[in-house]
Amino acid sequence: LQRQLENEIRAVIQGLHPADIAFILESLPVEQRQLVWRLVASDQAADVLLEVDDWARESLIESMDRQDLVAATGTMDADEIADLVPDLPPDVVAEVQKGLTEEERAQLIAAMGYPEGSVGAIMDFEMVRVREDVSLEVVLRYLRRLHELPDHTDQIFVVDRQDRLQGVLPLTTLLVSEPDSDVSEVMNTDYLTLGPLDEDAEAAGAFERYDLVSAPVIDDQGRLIGRVTINEVVDVIQEDSQEQALSRAGLQEEDIFAPVVSALRNRAPWLLVNLCTASIASFIASRFEDTVSHIVILAFLMSIVAGIGGNSGNQTMTMIIRALAVGRVTGANIWQLIKRELSVTFMVGACGSIVTGIFAWVISGSSAIAAVMMAAMIGNMLIGAALGVMIPLLRDRFGKDPAVGSSVLLTFATDSLGFFIFLGLATVFLL
Amino acid sequence: LQRQLENEIRAVIQGLHPADIAFILESLPVEQRQLVWRLVASDQAADVLLEVDDWARESLIESMDRQDLVAATGTMDADEIADLVPDLPPDVVAEVQKGLTEEERAQLIAAMGYPEGSVGAIMDFEMVRVREDVSLEVVLRYLRRLHELPDHTDQIFVVDRQDRLQGVLPLTTLLVSEPDSDVSEVMNTDYLTLGPLDEDAEAAGAFERYDLVSAPVIDDQGRLIGRVTINEVVDVIQEDSQEQALSRAGLQEEDIFAPVVSALRNRAPWLLVNLCTASIASFIASRFEDTVSHIVILAFLMSIVAGIGGNSGNQTMTMIIRALAVGRVTGANIWQLIKRELSVTFMVGACGSIVTGIFAWVISGSSAIAAVMMAAMIGNMLIGAALGVMIPLLRDRFGKDPAVGSSVLLTFATDSLGFFIFLGLATVFLL
Repeated sequence: LQRQLENEIRAVIQGLHPADIAFILESLPVEQRQLVWRLVASDQAADVLLEVDDWARESLIESMDRQDLVAATGTMDADEIADLVPDLPPDVVAEVQKGLTEEERAQLIAAMGYPEGSVGAIMDFEMVRVREDVSLEVVLRYLRRLHELPDHTDQIFVVDRQDRLQGVLPLTTLLVSEPDSDVSEVMNTDYLTLGPLDEDAEAAGAFERYDLVSAPVIDDQGRLIGRVTINEVVDVIQEDSQEQALSRAGLQEEDIFAPVVSALRNRAPWLLVNLCTASIASFIASRFEDTVSHIVILAFLMSIVAGIGGNSGNQTMTMIIRALAVGRVTGANIWQLIKRELSVTFMVGACGSIVTGIFAWVISGSSAIAAVMMAAMIGNMLIGAALGVMIPLLRDRFGKDPAVGSSVLLTFATDSLGFFIFLGLATVFLL
Repeated sequence: LQRQLENEIRAVIQGLHPADIAFILESLPVEQRQLVWRLVASDQAADVLLEVDDWARESLIESMDRQDLVAATGTMDADEIADLVPDLPPDVVAEVQKGLTEEERAQLIAAMGYPEGSVGAIMDFEMVRVREDVSLEVVLRYLRRLHELPDHTDQIFVVDRQDRLQGVLPLTTLLVSEPDSDVSEVMNTDYLTLGPLDEDAEAAGAFERYDLVSAPVIDDQGRLIGRVTINEVVDVIQEDSQEQALSRAGLQEEDIFAPVVSALRNRAPWLLVNLCTASIASFIASRFEDTVSHIVILAFLMSIVAGIGGNSGNQTMTMIIRALAVGRVTGANIWQLIKRELSVTFMVGACGSIVTGIFAWVISGSSAIAAVMMAAMIGNMLIGAALGVMIPLLRDRFGKDPAVGSSVLLTFATDSLGFFIFLGLATVFLL
């Protein structure tokens, strides 16, 4: 029965796109994942391995024996092998690279050398090259002899004898032009090139802005060394936005079926940092124990002052991070931005402080407490706004720490200073 | 002198890509933006209008006279006009649609009818269609007569007499196949189609998963009505992720150079909601005024308990929202997920409570207070975890409120219950 079931699953899998198989594997708990993985046909294994997310790939590779791994990896292109190398056992890598041609081996080494996050790490080496002095007729015949063009070929590259890029020939141009024209007559010489050490996010920006499907990568001598395609760029965009969403909660991508211990490692550090900053803030507040013991109601109002400063600063910070990301903040307009944020915050604070003032007055029955609370709240919101502008700007100036650091720092400041200003004002004016 | 400067700016702009001009306009304060906009040549105006972000487009259209607007819009495709219609004065729309062909007018009406966020709203109508019973030679000759192919044409569509889609012919297949083969022999019949009412985010998922450059859109009779291209999909992905980042701080996209008043409208509502929830939480805490007046130090510890519950619940919620978004949560594994989140949280809480316990003991000198604090903290973190799972699941079940609602609700619950549990336990065990 078990066998029959397995055969059925195997038949279903056989008909699926590798990306869909990868999705199913990602959605299964580790044990079932490895069970199903064993039923994936060996000719699909390589494609599936390339499609699954990093966090799931590990558990798949673990469950394969050496021979299967070598077989699967052996069918991949050099740039694909390079992506997997960090997850592969060293002896498998050694075995696989023996099977490569001289050229592929050079490509593999090149691809492995580029740091994560660079264009070099996402480029591939499958390109169609032609010379500029041949006719389109010749190009068409040449393409026909290839039997298959690389995925996402929307243009072919025109190079000279030294492999220096001279122009690009979009397939659409090739198709609508007269076959007896020369390549040099119809090729496009105004095109975007990338360098292998450019940031992948910058490349993504260029693809988005100029609506590209592929772009050539050249070295500093102008030689064509690779190409970036839109599918890699879409992955970069998606991963960046996911990483951002996760890092805002101090997290990394996590296998939701992984053992609890590995989740612990993912989550504990950020929570401990938050715990420490909260403790320091509350220690600062506790210096006013005397004040609070005289007017106990302050204890319940102080967290409102602290919280709203953090919320308001967080809005400012989000706007500034966004403006920085799209390059809309320049030296010339920084002061204008700061002034604008402070005015907006002051006005929002003024509105909000009326609500707060009424609440404080109702709960405490004292208009003096209400007045102190309103002043402290506006003050703390202005501090939040100022920090909301300055933290991301400084972070941008000195390279870039993760965004998560910014929000922890901001909350820490608005909590501590919120307590300090509110209880400080209360000590001066109410005791 | 003014005139000379203007001519120089005009010359610089002339050489730029419309996307770059749009970027410059977006980076300028409103007045300067309109000044520079007047210098953009009329043949570039249409492309620039299509490239600028929604929030900046308004100020550009405002500064154009009716005639220029009609001229610029008149050169656009039906789907592009449809995108602009909400921003255009009605009389301009009326004027422009007079200049359209019968077919274009039908397309414009169709495009305007699809709701925002649907495939219909991002599709275009520029497609190359061929019949399946002709030879590739004929197709090649036909394409040559077109002189130009639509942007992002990676495949042409094979339709029958009723315009029903029969298959797709990738340009790469066309180029590598023998010219005397028939279209039906080489066309691809296993392809993805979209419906005009599908969600654009779903289409984006399909493009990402199957590495597409374009996809046909068909109606329920199987007739080809449009096509979606990767550049539109990239915009959808980018906009979604930006909207998410902004909405987490209760914001919408905002012109950072717009008057302060419009920013006020963007920011105040969310801050007021936060202010109200914080007030309610502090009102709940104030019910324990008696307890706090006996043991003042509780006032400074209670915000730690509340805060860490929110942070921890936020981590859980982020993981669950992410798992939901990629479709990795199924009815079958919900209980497993909840159990896992509670165990992870309990373990993180146990570690964290040691730090907290020591802090509470040092600051208060009382091991009883430390014990109450540890218990309250773990309890509040478990509540945060449970809500972090349940809020997004319920939201998902009943259509989808914006994510921002989830985080406000979560913080409200962990604040109120954090205060309540901590001060409640303290009242029972310490007084």
